[in-house]
Amino acid sequence: MDDNYSKVLLDESEMPTQWYNIIPDLPVPPPPPLHPGTREPIGPDDLAPLFAMGLIEQEVSSESYIDIPGEVLDIYRLWRPSPLLRARRLEKALDTPAKIFLKYEGVSPAGSHKVNTAVPQAYYNAKEGITKITTETGAGQWGSAMAFATAQFGLECEVWQVRASYDQKPYRKTMMEIWGATLHPSPSDLTEAGRAILAADPNSPGSLGIAISEAVEMAVQDENTRYALGSVLNHVLLHQTIIGEEALLQLAKVGETPDVLVGCTGGGSNFGGLSFPFLREKLAGRMNPTIRCVEPASCPSLTKGEYRYDFGDTGQLTPLVKMHTLGHTFIPDPIHAGGLRYHGMAPLVSHIYDQGLVEAEAIHQTECFEAAVLFARTEGIIPAPEPTHAIAAAIREALRCKETGEEKVILTALCGHGHLDLASYEKFLAGELVDYDYPAEKVAAAMAQVPVID
Amino acid sequence: MDDNYSKVLLDESEMPTQWYNIIPDLPVPPPPPLHPGTREPIGPDDLAPLFAMGLIEQEVSSESYIDIPGEVLDIYRLWRPSPLLRARRLEKALDTPAKIFLKYEGVSPAGSHKVNTAVPQAYYNAKEGITKITTETGAGQWGSAMAFATAQFGLECEVWQVRASYDQKPYRKTMMEIWGATLHPSPSDLTEAGRAILAADPNSPGSLGIAISEAVEMAVQDENTRYALGSVLNHVLLHQTIIGEEALLQLAKVGETPDVLVGCTGGGSNFGGLSFPFLREKLAGRMNPTIRCVEPASCPSLTKGEYRYDFGDTGQLTPLVKMHTLGHTFIPDPIHAGGLRYHGMAPLVSHIYDQGLVEAEAIHQTECFEAAVLFARTEGIIPAPEPTHAIAAAIREALRCKETGEEKVILTALCGHGHLDLASYEKFLAGELVDYDYPAEKVAAAMAQVPVID
Repeated sequence: MDDNYSKVLLDESEMPTQWYNIIPDLPVPPPPPLHPGTREPIGPDDLAPLFAMGLIEQEVSSESYIDIPGEVLDIYRLWRPSPLLRARRLEKALDTPAKIFLKYEGVSPAGSHKVNTAVPQAYYNAKEGITKITTETGAGQWGSAMAFATAQFGLECEVWQVRASYDQKPYRKTMMEIWGATLHPSPSDLTEAGRAILAADPNSPGSLGIAISEAVEMAVQDENTRYALGSVLNHVLLHQTIIGEEALLQLAKVGETPDVLVGCTGGGSNFGGLSFPFLREKLAGRMNPTIRCVEPASCPSLTKGEYRYDFGDTGQLTPLVKMHTLGHTFIPDPIHAGGLRYHGMAPLVSHIYDQGLVEAEAIHQTECFEAAVLFARTEGIIPAPEPTHAIAAAIREALRCKETGEEKVILTALCGHGHLDLASYEKFLAGELVDYDYPAEKVAAAMAQVPVID
Repeated sequence: MDDNYSKVLLDESEMPTQWYNIIPDLPVPPPPPLHPGTREPIGPDDLAPLFAMGLIEQEVSSESYIDIPGEVLDIYRLWRPSPLLRARRLEKALDTPAKIFLKYEGVSPAGSHKVNTAVPQAYYNAKEGITKITTETGAGQWGSAMAFATAQFGLECEVWQVRASYDQKPYRKTMMEIWGATLHPSPSDLTEAGRAILAADPNSPGSLGIAISEAVEMAVQDENTRYALGSVLNHVLLHQTIIGEEALLQLAKVGETPDVLVGCTGGGSNFGGLSFPFLREKLAGRMNPTIRCVEPASCPSLTKGEYRYDFGDTGQLTPLVKMHTLGHTFIPDPIHAGGLRYHGMAPLVSHIYDQGLVEAEAIHQTECFEAAVLFARTEGIIPAPEPTHAIAAAIREALRCKETGEEKVILTALCGHGHLDLASYEKFLAGELVDYDYPAEKVAAAMAQVPVID
């Protein structure tokens, strides 16, 4: 390989053919999810009305590796293996001795890592005879990914998009429609949940919590319909581990091992996908990277939240899961990284953070957009608002290396491009982007609503 | 290589290090450009106020191969070599025995092939001490590419964007500003050309012809400023030949040679970039592909225009070049493929068409968008409006193969993604996209304005 390489590619024949399940390798097993009624650990049957059985099996699997079906590999190959970028021009601009690597998932059809799980979710549903998927979307990344994935298996796809986002981002809607999905602004009059909200407020801008309730309600009513979730759950993080498995192979190709791994965390699927294979290597003593979550300072579930059983949604429809939470009724300030505006954190990410296996830090959005513009001017790619957090954290680390002279290898994930998020850059460039103080009182009020589980 | 491959990649070390100049290999040399005043062949000195000398040398070069400077290769490596896609899922949907290959340029920072020439143009200007580039942009692809390229060499970049586009496409504007360019809606009050138009019509929506006049006027006034053009000229097509050179290597990797090569033509740079290396092989008797230009039915310079000396711009500021033209005052109907709305055609593409070395066909935009939606649903990528023409032509060919049973290898260029063009898809999906009949009377009126050169 040329010493001056800008990216490390893998041939399709080198693409990993298994997902990695970290659970069997953890020193302490993660606490089980609880039934919201009985507060007893839930079993597969409790989840059957919502998810395909193939996915439920993965959710509770104790196998370390799960084969990726051939039909899924065929679709992954449209864009995978994704490139590992070496940000030499950014390093030079920072005048740092550090090496910065970014695993770039923006090459996927929908423009982010979300497709890595949307495709197997569509596959297992289609295999079990399901004909329709319902889901929600906020910023639009997940809905786009599911629209693309369902098109590959001839499934119908109905997406409830948060009303405010539906109105403000017509291009995301168009993208989903190109792939054949049907969209509804949420709240809609198609569900009881939606009608109740509209009765109280006909002009409700909606919320992710409401949209989840609508999509779930529609799924459980029809035996040929299932619901799909784009983050948080174990099987979602499992599917995303192909990111980290590829990155391991790519770094090995150029003889590098990471000293620091940073990843942005909203629901936790991008972070888990990148970091779990490296955490496996660390637990096995084969490498020793510092692994760090980066979250928005205005929605800091890991650095400020409590590790408690809470609901995954505002409407209390989901099981109770033990996670770092700001309270299921907490509504984050309107930062532009819509994908990071979630009150909780994936139970698996919460567990490893609680175990001290990973660190966390929180960054304000103006620092993130400053980092993203420097990145775009040096490396070309315009990042989505979510991974601007990862880039800001990588730059912080690289600047520390500049001070200490350490030639650290920094690895992060550039989990999506920002082509459909340029309005947020427009605001930043116009000086109109604001940072929000940590809303301590709002969080305290939300935490008071979290059920007390012994 | 896996028999079931979806894309053919090259390692960075396999990237071509020379551009290919087709002129020495042509059976008949192309006619020279003429000075608009003297109507004598122009020399390098006539172009010096507009372009860097390194680019002028390439414009008139008689060398077959020109080394790509290392600094340009370093930047190309951010996204090059670009992938060659095999559209297996599209082939299956069409039930065709044909093999469809697409050289995908949407992986570049600005999202199209335009960056391939923007980078060397910025490089040669910077090398000669130029500090600012002026240019125009219509749809925004070229302006974005130049904004990115100038950022790599610390050059200022001033872009005159057609007013209607400036107002309708705020995201393209934001993209250019992220990379540090300064934008002006055109007509502007910064130039004599702009002020004259505004005096006559303060609400003028502008045109590419006016924007060119403004950018040229600003460039010639300052000895440290030069102008940049994104298509048509020989040196622009030269830079784009890296597309075809890579595609040749990629097809060789999988043991294929093209039977049919189709490429969309606006100014001709994408088509020339893909096809010239294959035309070299054809002229040398090493392969025998049919090579075909695809143009919009409402702006069919090759299939309906005359091969005559004409101006490259509405304002008659450019040299007279022999090309297929609909008349320099012709204003095409508002199809969504803004990059194909040009009255003329690159002199080199016109010449080889006149010589019978390539064919041409014209397609209406609704057929193109139908093809693009089928492509997006099967292969994932949402094409820019311009390459929807290439995809529609490839599908026509593949369907002919279905009838005849021929297993032809079809090669085309997917020269950009459509992430910033989703409004045109929205119109198509809503059934609001119309086809425009060939405007025979408008063309006749415009052709009457074309100077008569003996």
